[in-house]
This record gives sequence, structure tokens and C-alpha cells, in this order.
Amino acid sequence: KKPLALGGYFPRESRSPPSSLPPPPRNSRLNSMATEAQAQWVLTATGRSPTNIAVIKYWGKRDEALILPVNDSISVTLDPDHLSATTTVAASPAFPSDRMWLNGKEIALSGGRFQSCLREIRKRARDVEDEKRGIKIKKEDWEKLHVHIASYNNFPTAAGLASSAAGFACLVFTLGKLMNVNEDYGELSSIARQGSGSACRSIYGGFVKWCMGKSDDGSDSMAVQLVDESHWDDLVIIIAVVSSKQKETSSTSGMRDTVETSPLLQYRAQTVVPGRILKMEEAIKNRDFESFARLTCADSNQFHAVCLDTSPPIFYMNDTSHRIISLVEKWNHSEGTPQVAYTFDAGPNAVLIARNRKTAALLLQRLLYCFPPQENNLDSYMVGDKSILSSAGVQSLADIEALPPPPEMKTPTQKFKGDVSYFICSRPGAGPKVLTEERHTLIDSATGLAKGV
Amino acid sequence: KKPLALGGYFPRESRSPPSSLPPPPRNSRLNSMATEAQAQWVLTATGRSPTNIAVIKYWGKRDEALILPVNDSISVTLDPDHLSATTTVAASPAFPSDRMWLNGKEIALSGGRFQSCLREIRKRARDVEDEKRGIKIKKEDWEKLHVHIASYNNFPTAAGLASSAAGFACLVFTLGKLMNVNEDYGELSSIARQGSGSACRSIYGGFVKWCMGKSDDGSDSMAVQLVDESHWDDLVIIIAVVSSKQKETSSTSGMRDTVETSPLLQYRAQTVVPGRILKMEEAIKNRDFESFARLTCADSNQFHAVCLDTSPPIFYMNDTSHRIISLVEKWNHSEGTPQVAYTFDAGPNAVLIARNRKTAALLLQRLLYCFPPQENNLDSYMVGDKSILSSAGVQSLADIEALPPPPEMKTPTQKFKGDVSYFICSRPGAGPKVLTEERHTLIDSATGLAKGV
Repeated sequence: KKPLALGGYFPRESRSPPSSLPPPPRNSRLNSMATEAQAQWVLTATGRSPTNIAVIKYWGKRDEALILPVNDSISVTLDPDHLSATTTVAASPAFPSDRMWLNGKEIALSGGRFQSCLREIRKRARDVEDEKRGIKIKKEDWEKLHVHIASYNNFPTAAGLASSAAGFACLVFTLGKLMNVNEDYGELSSIARQGSGSACRSIYGGFVKWCMGKSDDGSDSMAVQLVDESHWDDLVIIIAVVSSKQKETSSTSGMRDTVETSPLLQYRAQTVVPGRILKMEEAIKNRDFESFARLTCADSNQFHAVCLDTSPPIFYMNDTSHRIISLVEKWNHSEGTPQVAYTFDAGPNAVLIARNRKTAALLLQRLLYCFPPQENNLDSYMVGDKSILSSAGVQSLADIEALPPPPEMKTPTQKFKGDVSYFICSRPGAGPKVLTEERHTLIDSATGLAKGV
Repeated sequence: KKPLALGGYFPRESRSPPSSLPPPPRNSRLNSMATEAQAQWVLTATGRSPTNIAVIKYWGKRDEALILPVNDSISVTLDPDHLSATTTVAASPAFPSDRMWLNGKEIALSGGRFQSCLREIRKRARDVEDEKRGIKIKKEDWEKLHVHIASYNNFPTAAGLASSAAGFACLVFTLGKLMNVNEDYGELSSIARQGSGSACRSIYGGFVKWCMGKSDDGSDSMAVQLVDESHWDDLVIIIAVVSSKQKETSSTSGMRDTVETSPLLQYRAQTVVPGRILKMEEAIKNRDFESFARLTCADSNQFHAVCLDTSPPIFYMNDTSHRIISLVEKWNHSEGTPQVAYTFDAGPNAVLIARNRKTAALLLQRLLYCFPPQENNLDSYMVGDKSILSSAGVQSLADIEALPPPPEMKTPTQKFKGDVSYFICSRPGAGPKVLTEERHTLIDSATGLAKGV
């Protein structure tokens, strides 16, 4: 047996640049049955999954290992064009171990969460045959095949925008395609859940509910789609990515601390959330923006309240987050009925959901008035659906400077240049999908390694 | 009848400078019985009352008019030398109406809360006789006599340091003295409560519990002293007065909003606080600093959590408050056992309670390291018990610059110059007392008006 011809292609930024692939391990059942030709193939699948933003929050696990939550949650899936993960998974008998690259950097796969997802998908793997390439993988062979995973987020991973939700949903979805898994989406969501709780909601588009389930083994803790992305498609979502110097508490350790120390969490989970879930389902079904906005804001605030009720207390929102809330609350109050809902995850970024495009344009004027860009670059200050800028009548930095103070604000209104890093404009979007074009593939099928790193 | 000789003495800053006092109203029962000599006297009493800081918080009324709370609370009274109100009350048949000066400015007495306190004390007024001056006031005469009130805080009223607690306690206490009220302190606390809820706790020194009571008429909603100020006298209290540009929600309207909209408040009041009250009483009795600190911090955080759970949400703490909490939490964690408790009222100021003077000095080093003074004036940056500076080895601004980063902080540690306006160092203190020296009297007994304004 000779090693694959690899060329000089290996990740530039990888901490441990791999040498050429070693030969497949000897004496494995797979090897013994594989031909020389089979040993050299690299089979890949590529998928894209959206991120999602909870409007009724998930905070607190009743089972840490299985990632079973203390309450149901509801989210909106964001348009994958703006916020999504793309993942290529590859299998080859030439791979001696599982490896992963995230945004071009190799990362350790030691975490139990990756292993859980891999194990659960491998269990459900079925026969795969690629006659053209002469590849034939029997169901039982998958246990022996290692995988390479390359994943890429089209938004900053560190921005606290549920990158792990998109990432794990994409991993599970794409592994499922690679291994010809036949399970329904509910089952896939339950597997994605074991990677990152909120990932189970990224298996569907539109509005999605994660049913906490009752079973101890977690088999009924999975996502269901409430409505697809076309049901309420006039919503516009603007995300303010807030600058922060503070190191934030990870949501995993944060919610563990809350479960262990907050006297209010169980009351929230058992008494407050169930009613809100019912009301939120109704609001979504009826496209009742007023109820939707009130519930969304109240539940975001209550999530941050139980964080504050934790010992030691957890602060995810900062003064800028508070200012954005005040801006929205004042405007909603002055209009008499909510125009915009806000929600904050485990970080200071504001996710603002406007009832329609016109409202979103008015919101954006307010945001740009209070938070003008630090850098003289409008293009990088608004990403995603940039066309919202022209809807707001803003084509240049001079247009921002010329914005009048919003009438509901008391003069003199303070401006906070630099407190928002940039904005993202998006909308409700679709669930995961397979990408078949070669340009989307993140792993080189000749080398089995992440491309372009 | 002729008016009192008044001179030209009237409040400089008063919005409506009074003309000379008019003659007493005709035909009143008092007048008809008063002699010419009696009509000209001004009878005064002066008292001083401390402020207090709750360690188990009061937030939420079950009766707005009577100021009846939804839960018990516990506070520590601060040394009146550092934080107190001084009030002179004066009565004279020459006064045509009730008037009040606060920190030298005349303010309207229209508020129902002043009227409640006045009415309740007048009801309990008894005969007063000053033989030397030939003054004799019958019990029933008090209903006809108007009062002038002058009050002064020895700390900034706007700093959000329970100035209304000290003020109303002092008003009730001093009116009680003037009108020879014989009621016990519990009864006085119940009257002060009707001025400002937390004022009832400023009727005593040391540690004080406000029992919420059960009665609809509020008669059993009053303060009791748990221990006096000598019981736990090694505690040192450092207050960081935090700069804030935000307009804060008044506690009256804030707690009303919380009662009306927070789903978590009733659970806190009915289920969480009763247990904490019992544990806090034990901790205070046993001078168990560890339990005291854990309860104090947790209850402050839970109070702010229910503020956040309010619609619209209320933020009293800002980024500076959060940084002070982090500083204390990190240090406490590194020491293995709490050295300092923190608590925040309806504003961003941190009240830090150190277990003893040595700990307070170490705390102050940390605070001065992170929050060096903006102005080059150490003297105005530490008020109250300034001797804590030398305990901390800080005699000059150069000493602050030379402070090493606290070992538990990760380098590089950020400094936040100007984020704290100044510090106050205090300790547990005594309850209200009468001041008899003429220099303490805030009303000129010749004119009946506030002095020195």
C-alpha cells in the first residue's frame, strides 16, 4: 500500500500542519476488505445550515450530557444568505483519525459533543454506493471510517450569534447526507441537540419550537417546525453587533451556574414559560406582531434576569445593549403599539425584529442616528441585506450625519459613535440544504484536507 | 395683633421668597385662646437621622397609599456622621401654612407623603409647655398650628443613597419631639413608612428589620431593631458613587411597574425572601460574615433581576457597577471565602461591606487601582472616614499610581479613570437623636425661616 499523493497542500493556519496522510491502519476489517482503488477515495458531502434566534429563550439544562432543557423554546431561523454555517464532511479509508477545521483553522475534536453527534449519525448510517467512482461502503463500514470536517461561518464566530447552533445543525445534517441516513428531521434535530442545544432548532426554517420532552433518554426532546419562512415574510431582522471588551461567560457554564444557584430559574421554567410558549405559538400563527413583540422582549429580559439572579451574577448586556432597549422602548411607547421587538442572547448584541420593511427603515434611521460608524466606511457598517440602507434613505456617511433626532427622543440626544461594530440586516429564512456545486465544497477531494487554508 | 419682627432674612434660593409673615389667621380656636405673647413664639426641635442600606431588599408595594411592602426587608443603618439628614421643625401661631426647605431650597409640601406624616404625628401630639418662654400648647391646638421644616443631608441628595429614608425618618422623629409624641419607636417607624417605605428602618441604629405586617390598615407594618450598632462593629462600609449620565427610574414608579408586570416578583416576595430573612437574621446574630455576604449579594442581584423582568425593563446598574461586582467576586473567589459583600439600590452606586478594617483597606486598594480619580484631588475623592486611606497606605495620588495590580486580576488590567465620582467610607451607626445645640438648628427662631439660605 502506498500513501495518497497529497501535493504540498495543508492548512496554512493550522497549529499542527499535517504531514502527508499515512497509510490506512493495517488489519482493520475495512482494510482487509478494501481494494487498493477503494483505499484512495475521498467521499464528501456539503451542506449549509442557518443560525436561529430564540424568541422564547432556552436557558438551563435538566441533563448536561444529553442536553435536555428545563423548558420549551421557540426561535426564528435567519436567512442563510446572511447568517449560516457551510460544512463539508469527508470520509476516506485513508483518514487515520477524525479531524476538523473551523473557518480554516484546525481545531481539536476531543469535545464530547462532536463525538456524540458523530456516534449518533454513524449508528444510523446506511449503505452508500458510488458506481462511477467504484466506491461501495456497507452500513457496518461506517464505524471504521474516519471523517474530516471543514466548516465555515459567513458571519463572525466570536460575535455571539449562535454560531454553534448553525455549526452543529450543519454537521449533523451533512453527516446524515454523507452517510445516507434516512431519519426524519425530528430525529436529526434530536442529534444536533446533543452537539449544541439550540442547534436542534436550526434543522428547520421559519419558526421552530424545541419541545423539551419528558423522556430521560432525550428521545422526545426535539424540534418541530411551527410555520415555514413564507408564513410571516414581512418581518425584517436587524442585528446590532455591539463592541465589547468584557470576556463573556460561555452559555454552557453560564446556564449550569444558573441552574445550580438561581432561585428564580425553576419558577421561570415551570410556571412562566409554558404559558408564554402557548401565547407565542398563537401570535406566530396569527402574525400578531403586538403579542409577538411583547412576548419576545419580556422573555429576553427574563432570561437576562435569571442570569443576574445567578451566583456569581452573569451580565451579558452592557450599557450599549441597555441604550438600544431604551431606544426601542421609547419608540414603541410613542407609537402606542410595538413597531420592533428586541431580543439578546448570551452577549451584548441586539437582535431587532421589525414588523415590516418600512418599520425596519425607520428603526435603522434611529440606530444610525444614535450609533454612527466609527470608521468612515458605510459599506462595512451594514452587512447582509444592504438594500435596507437605501430604504432608510441613507446612501452615504453624510446622510447619517444629516439624520434628524428621532422625535420621541428628548433633546439633546447623545450619540455613541463606535459602540456598535456593525449591523446585519436579515429576515426569516429556510432550513438546511445540500450544496452540490464544487465551489461550495470546503474539503479538497484529492487531499482530504480543508481547502484554501 | 402685629406681625412678628422678621428682619430681611429669607431664603436666597427659594423660588417664591416669602414676604414678612402675615398675622395669624383670625377667628381660629387657637387664636381666640392665644395671648399676644403666645402668638409671637416659634417653637423648634432639631434631630438627626441616619440613612440605611438594605441587605435584603424592599421592592414592591401591596398598598401604594399606605406604603405596605410585599416582603420583609433588613437593613444596616449607616453612621450618621457620614450619611444622615438633619431636620429642624418649627411651629408658630404666626405661620399661615406648612412650608419646607430641603438643603436650603424651598420645596412644595403638596405631596401626600409629607401630609401623611404630618397628619399622623399631629394626631398623636400632646400638651407642650415651655414655662420660661410662656408657651403653652394644648394637645388639640396642634391641629391648627402650621409647621416650617428645614432639612439638610450631609451627602448628595441626588446620589441615590436613600436620602428620602433619612429625610422622612428625621421628619417624623423630630416632629414627634416637637409635638411631645409619646409613641414608641415602632409606632414612629410605621409613620415614617408612610413618608418613604425604607424610612421606617432609619428609626433605629444597627441592623433593622421591616416587618411587612398583615393588617390592611398597615398598623403592623413597622421596623424592629435586630441588633444595635455595637453588635457587629468591625464591619466597614465603602460606597462607590458611580458617575451616571442616564436618567434613572424613580423607585416609586419602578416598583409599581415591577409589581404590575414582573412575573417573577411575587415568587421572589412570597417564596424566596422569607427564607432569606430567617437566614440573614441568623447571620447577623452570629456575625457570620460568609452567610451575610452571600445573602446580601444574592438579594441585591435578585432585586435587580426583577427590575430587569419588568416591562419595560429597569436598569439601575451600569457597566461600572458590573465591573465593581466582578472585582469583588474575583477577589472573594480567590480568597476562598467572601471578604466583601456588595449591594446596589435603585442606582449604579456600589455599597461594599468589608468584614473588617484590614479587608476594607485591601478592598480600597483594589478600587483605587481600577478607578483612579479623574480630578487631581485625593481629599475630595474619599469622604466620610478618610482615615481608611492611610490604612490602605494611600497618602497621595502618586501612591494610587504606584498600586500594583491585584494578584487575582488577569493582566493587563484595565483602569477606568473617572467612572467613580468619589468614595464614602462609613460603618454601621446609631439611630436618630435630638440635637440641642443652637448651631444645629436649621430654622431661625426669630424669623421662623430656614437659616443661611
